[in-house]
Amino acid sequence: MPPKMAVICETTLLDQHPSLAMDITSWLEAHQQNPSHLISSQGGESVKNDPNIIDQWLKKWDQIKLCRHSLVICIGGGALQDAVGYAASVFHRGLRLLRCPSTVLSQNDAGIGVKNGINDMGKKNFKGTFAAPEGVINDLNFLTTLAPNSIRAGYAEAVKVALLKDASFFDWIENHAQELHDLDDDAIASLIHRCARLHLEHIQNNGDPYEKGSSRPLDLGHWSAHKLESLSKHALEHGEAVALGIQWDALYAHSQGWLKADLYERIQNCFKHLGLPQRHHLFKQPQDILRGLEEFREHLGGQLTLPFIRDLAVTMEVNQVDEELYFSLASQLCP
Amino acid sequence: MPPKMAVICETTLLDQHPSLAMDITSWLEAHQQNPSHLISSQGGESVKNDPNIIDQWLKKWDQIKLCRHSLVICIGGGALQDAVGYAASVFHRGLRLLRCPSTVLSQNDAGIGVKNGINDMGKKNFKGTFAAPEGVINDLNFLTTLAPNSIRAGYAEAVKVALLKDASFFDWIENHAQELHDLDDDAIASLIHRCARLHLEHIQNNGDPYEKGSSRPLDLGHWSAHKLESLSKHALEHGEAVALGIQWDALYAHSQGWLKADLYERIQNCFKHLGLPQRHHLFKQPQDILRGLEEFREHLGGQLTLPFIRDLAVTMEVNQVDEELYFSLASQLCP
Repeated sequence: MPPKMAVICETTLLDQHPSLAMDITSWLEAHQQNPSHLISSQGGESVKNDPNIIDQWLKKWDQIKLCRHSLVICIGGGALQDAVGYAASVFHRGLRLLRCPSTVLSQNDAGIGVKNGINDMGKKNFKGTFAAPEGVINDLNFLTTLAPNSIRAGYAEAVKVALLKDASFFDWIENHAQELHDLDDDAIASLIHRCARLHLEHIQNNGDPYEKGSSRPLDLGHWSAHKLESLSKHALEHGEAVALGIQWDALYAHSQGWLKADLYERIQNCFKHLGLPQRHHLFKQPQDILRGLEEFREHLGGQLTLPFIRDLAVTMEVNQVDEELYFSLASQLCP
Repeated sequence: MPPKMAVICETTLLDQHPSLAMDITSWLEAHQQNPSHLISSQGGESVKNDPNIIDQWLKKWDQIKLCRHSLVICIGGGALQDAVGYAASVFHRGLRLLRCPSTVLSQNDAGIGVKNGINDMGKKNFKGTFAAPEGVINDLNFLTTLAPNSIRAGYAEAVKVALLKDASFFDWIENHAQELHDLDDDAIASLIHRCARLHLEHIQNNGDPYEKGSSRPLDLGHWSAHKLESLSKHALEHGEAVALGIQWDALYAHSQGWLKADLYERIQNCFKHLGLPQRHHLFKQPQDILRGLEEFREHLGGQLTLPFIRDLAVTMEVNQVDEELYFSLASQLCP
């Protein structure tokens, strides 16, 4: 007998794909004896801000008697994946989770990971767990109803992982920037596949999947990106903030003499050709963004440890930064 | 530099050991640059029922900027250990935890384990995580202020693990039942040490520390014990309920012909000589207790799987039970 299953699906996906609710329900009914259990939920960062939503899911799962062998299937973007993953990981000390990420960003990055979390006390992922999903299914059909800017925002993590780990992938992105900008299906599928694979290989092989150390080798540009997101009240998507954060760090690395001018320019051009933001009014208040440094350090603890690149796929770690230099460079990212 | 540390200590311990608060504070001040962080908390099952208490701890830890390298030290009984362990495991996806259990039961059993949990939706450990502590310090001084009945309640888990795993330990308990009943320090220390070691060996070697399967090989008598505890509104301590649960299961096993009369009698006499309960008025409503079977199954899921013994350290698993037989035998455990 298959395990009991419950599905949580983002409401917008059910609206945009009119047959989806019926498909899910029919499939559940065909594959288990119990009545089907489909919960429609809001997505986006707001779902991570409301603990009552999590408790409603847990209550429902309790009513339908899910047990530790049961499977929760989450269909939605990265924020919903984070929240459902957290709920599943604490219910009866952990249900099994199958992720079906529905955005470029979640398909190529967050959906592959082992992190869950919800926001509290005004901090992102204040409560969370590490838990590997049973599986991840990337269905490219879900991308067809995304807004163009959301698709392009998802490219930022691919640029990031290419810069950190795979020079030929960065070349590929540069060479396909026009198709990607124009939302070509094949180009998007290739980008997701290659980025997801690099992400997965990192988690499997880097030796610290649960971040016991102080190092966050994949988090290029993320210290400021997290802060930019919250300062913009999430008007900036995560990928857009990552694009800005990487460009600020690249400018800083170039100013420090770590990064040569030609690669710095290639990075800028790459984001430009992909249609990702290069400037933002929040850089008018760099002191607000710089507070993200301490929050970034606190999350893992220990010494501040930021990843930078010296060259394509050549990384370095930095334990202290020149905040005045960051401050003075911020004007170049103002509109 | 040592990691940041925060201590949560059960209020009754701070009251009963007048120098304890000062000892903790001085030690923290001597070993870290930061101000010391000692939280006094209620213990017992009620601490697991109030999510606001957990959130207060998290808020405090956030204020003092604990990070994933920080150490939370929990001094208290099993319930406080469960709740603090849960809080520590979700704060920033997991702080390090050092347990100082303060009761016989928590020193020989729960404190050694990898389970955390809080109660919700009226169910024990409804939310929880698996997380191994960094270390466990059993300080026998804390036992000196326990009520005699609480000390004796702690013996029940030792009897349990002896029955399941170590015939010579059961012989030892029988031979030292008088000293244990009379709260002899050396006898208590030996019992705790041997029981804790058996418990730890089980977690290390049984192959399923995070209970992915349906089997709960250490939970002899626990399906009814959990229910007896909640039906008694926790007037019954966990150990007392376990003693009753084991005796009901032993009577059942004897009636089924699995357990010979002489061992059944030895088990009864052992609990009697240790001063643990043998009867309880809740057995007048066995149908209420029998609802614990389904709750026990649900928690792990899959097929109902109960551990029984055929002989000392000879176990068997049972996947269905004769509820009518349990029902009829309950009268023998009525006062």
